[in-house]
Amino acid sequence: MRMYDIIKKKRDGGELSAEEIGYFIGGVTDGSIPDYQISALCMAIYFRGMTVRETCDLTFAVRDSGDKLDFSAIGGIRADKHSTGGVGDKTSLVVGPIVASLGVKVAKMSGRGLGHTGGTVDKLESIRGFQTTLAEEDFIRQVNEIGIAIVGQSREFAPADKKLYALRDVTATVDSMPLIAASIMGKKLAADDDCIVLDVKTGSGSFMKTAEKSRALARLMVDIGKRAGKKMVALITDMDVPLGYAIGNSLEVIEAVETLKGRGPEDFTEVCLTLAAYMLSLAGMGTPNEAKALARRAIDDGSALKKLKEMVAAQGGDPACIDDTNRFDKAKYAYAVTSARSGYIVRVDTEAYGLASLALGAGRNRAEDTIDHSAGILLKKKTGDYVEKGALLATLYANDGEKFAEAERILLGATSFGDTMPAKTPLICDIVE
Amino acid sequence: MRMYDIIKKKRDGGELSAEEIGYFIGGVTDGSIPDYQISALCMAIYFRGMTVRETCDLTFAVRDSGDKLDFSAIGGIRADKHSTGGVGDKTSLVVGPIVASLGVKVAKMSGRGLGHTGGTVDKLESIRGFQTTLAEEDFIRQVNEIGIAIVGQSREFAPADKKLYALRDVTATVDSMPLIAASIMGKKLAADDDCIVLDVKTGSGSFMKTAEKSRALARLMVDIGKRAGKKMVALITDMDVPLGYAIGNSLEVIEAVETLKGRGPEDFTEVCLTLAAYMLSLAGMGTPNEAKALARRAIDDGSALKKLKEMVAAQGGDPACIDDTNRFDKAKYAYAVTSARSGYIVRVDTEAYGLASLALGAGRNRAEDTIDHSAGILLKKKTGDYVEKGALLATLYANDGEKFAEAERILLGATSFGDTMPAKTPLICDIVE
Repeated sequence: MRMYDIIKKKRDGGELSAEEIGYFIGGVTDGSIPDYQISALCMAIYFRGMTVRETCDLTFAVRDSGDKLDFSAIGGIRADKHSTGGVGDKTSLVVGPIVASLGVKVAKMSGRGLGHTGGTVDKLESIRGFQTTLAEEDFIRQVNEIGIAIVGQSREFAPADKKLYALRDVTATVDSMPLIAASIMGKKLAADDDCIVLDVKTGSGSFMKTAEKSRALARLMVDIGKRAGKKMVALITDMDVPLGYAIGNSLEVIEAVETLKGRGPEDFTEVCLTLAAYMLSLAGMGTPNEAKALARRAIDDGSALKKLKEMVAAQGGDPACIDDTNRFDKAKYAYAVTSARSGYIVRVDTEAYGLASLALGAGRNRAEDTIDHSAGILLKKKTGDYVEKGALLATLYANDGEKFAEAERILLGATSFGDTMPAKTPLICDIVE
Repeated sequence: MRMYDIIKKKRDGGELSAEEIGYFIGGVTDGSIPDYQISALCMAIYFRGMTVRETCDLTFAVRDSGDKLDFSAIGGIRADKHSTGGVGDKTSLVVGPIVASLGVKVAKMSGRGLGHTGGTVDKLESIRGFQTTLAEEDFIRQVNEIGIAIVGQSREFAPADKKLYALRDVTATVDSMPLIAASIMGKKLAADDDCIVLDVKTGSGSFMKTAEKSRALARLMVDIGKRAGKKMVALITDMDVPLGYAIGNSLEVIEAVETLKGRGPEDFTEVCLTLAAYMLSLAGMGTPNEAKALARRAIDDGSALKKLKEMVAAQGGDPACIDDTNRFDKAKYAYAVTSARSGYIVRVDTEAYGLASLALGAGRNRAEDTIDHSAGILLKKKTGDYVEKGALLATLYANDGEKFAEAERILLGATSFGDTMPAKTPLICDIVE
């Protein structure tokens, strides 16, 4: 088999066999296929696409390129959710405890964030003492004992994806549906869950800017997961505005805790309840509606909050932080961003909001950057809100006062005002089963 | 400027500016753009194409990536021809002397061949003593004195093309019209000719398999040349059968010499006269028809043959070889390929004929291979001929008797027989002005 022939076949619109895809990913993993051939194939795939069958074979080859987890020692049904990523997305911190408090196991190995805010693991590390590294047997014991553990990735999952993604990132071949699906699902399937709920974001803060593209990606990933024997659902959720009001690591944890206390923002609470409902429903706990009622009760009766505290304690964190969120480390400086005009906020560039948070120190530009856990943004007004001239739009937090000017500039540039109230966009745009 | 943005722009169907193309070729030349980005852009160009303006800018950037010749010290009008390459194509050896004998200057720097047979320079080296390396001032003096010199490339012309071609060759991006045109014309325009006649081959022995594609390539290259201020014509000539009967270096030189003596094969003579006619006509020597009559007379009165002998003598070769072609080195072994059936030859795979010649040692698989100048094939029958069972189809020549079996197998496999005489295809398919 020759890589040249594989590139040519795809270039000419052919369907690659499982063997050809296996040869390709094998060569990506062991370094035997040169980068220039990999990028040429990625560009040919960008133009020619892949069938569902090809995409599945690509996904499975990516999954099999590295370590795979074995959770058979965990009793009960294991469910996970995966978000394609957005601004202010701290759902895992709420959904995990809800689901675990109702008896479904959550064994989550999460990546670190690259970009505007940290990943789930970065956010958890803003809780004083919280350990995101556990030996695998301790991880499994904790899931068996309290139903939930969230840790960083200790092993090398899907190394072919890491290599591929790095190349796609510099050759304008990221934006290809089969390559995106294989990247996300190849990593996801290396874990060992029974049920997976995908949260596919759509809109200005996501990398799928239209609902159609998000739906197509969701359909493809659900099909791949099913072919791998998983119970699958995907929700298409709105990312045209940030989710909730907090952007930045400790700020988001605090908002998640407030949500588990029943005092969370309406939009964020609704998305969390819906995600939890589908995870529970896939795990056999009734219809989504029935499961959603269970999820709501888990917030109302405090059992989900209790579960979070158990997890924090089990992983070395200070549970008192959860009871009293004033105990979180605070940024040295706060800065009020006010409105220069009166009117409705008619549109925001959510991705730019993320970049403003990054400018404050809440995210990473490069993998080796360190995160400032207390930096970030607390929004006061979002799309659809009416604002008086001079009113507070957002409070910025940073440990370096020099950073406010840039963040304010980005934030204001990303906020559009108008005289009429904009139409409301649905929070949950679609369910793909 | 970032290479990423250039790739993305082309990927999305945009038209690259002269600055962007210059940045790209500059980075190819100095090695600052990594191979994986170059190959990704080549694949995007494969799919999106380029406008004539983009292709011109690409060609000029390739031309300007290395040395350029200055022939201003050569008096008179300089004309050259360039063939896209075929099997048995030894036209330069006939056309050059014809044109030079009529007072138009031929200052040819030719590449070596990679593939089935050698290039013009390799062929000339089968003349005992012939030097293909001349100091530039000697080269120019010779052209001024006798009107013609043909040497190998001593300088680095269009190094960007060398790099690009090597990458395209392994990433299935050779077959792109703008990339082909920029590669050929980028090198051609680094020379300093006034008139250029392109011989664009079409059919099974060329890399443009259809007349349509050949015509489109010819149109593009003629337009590029004109924009660079050259007088341009392209002939589309048939390569569905080998040109003439000789394939292999010394065999082809002998056939060229015979043609200059007025005893050449009909098809080969006709192509040579037509090419010479257009070179002369571009150089101001009348209409193509008038110029063709001049060319024919240059053969008939021996002046073209005399010009070849002058060139051979001037470059250290033995002119007696031209008078008596029996003086050429002969291969140790000859092998007769006979027909297993009676019937018409209805079709041949001309490229495979070239590969049979390569198998005998007449070409190079890799740039570092040495050529066996006396190896090759003398065809006895070509497409359209009737053959009796057992009759001679071709004689193979090699200095290693082990090589005949493979060459015979390829040759016979590439020859199709039938019971009715095939339709004649035109030798000169089109003229693009």
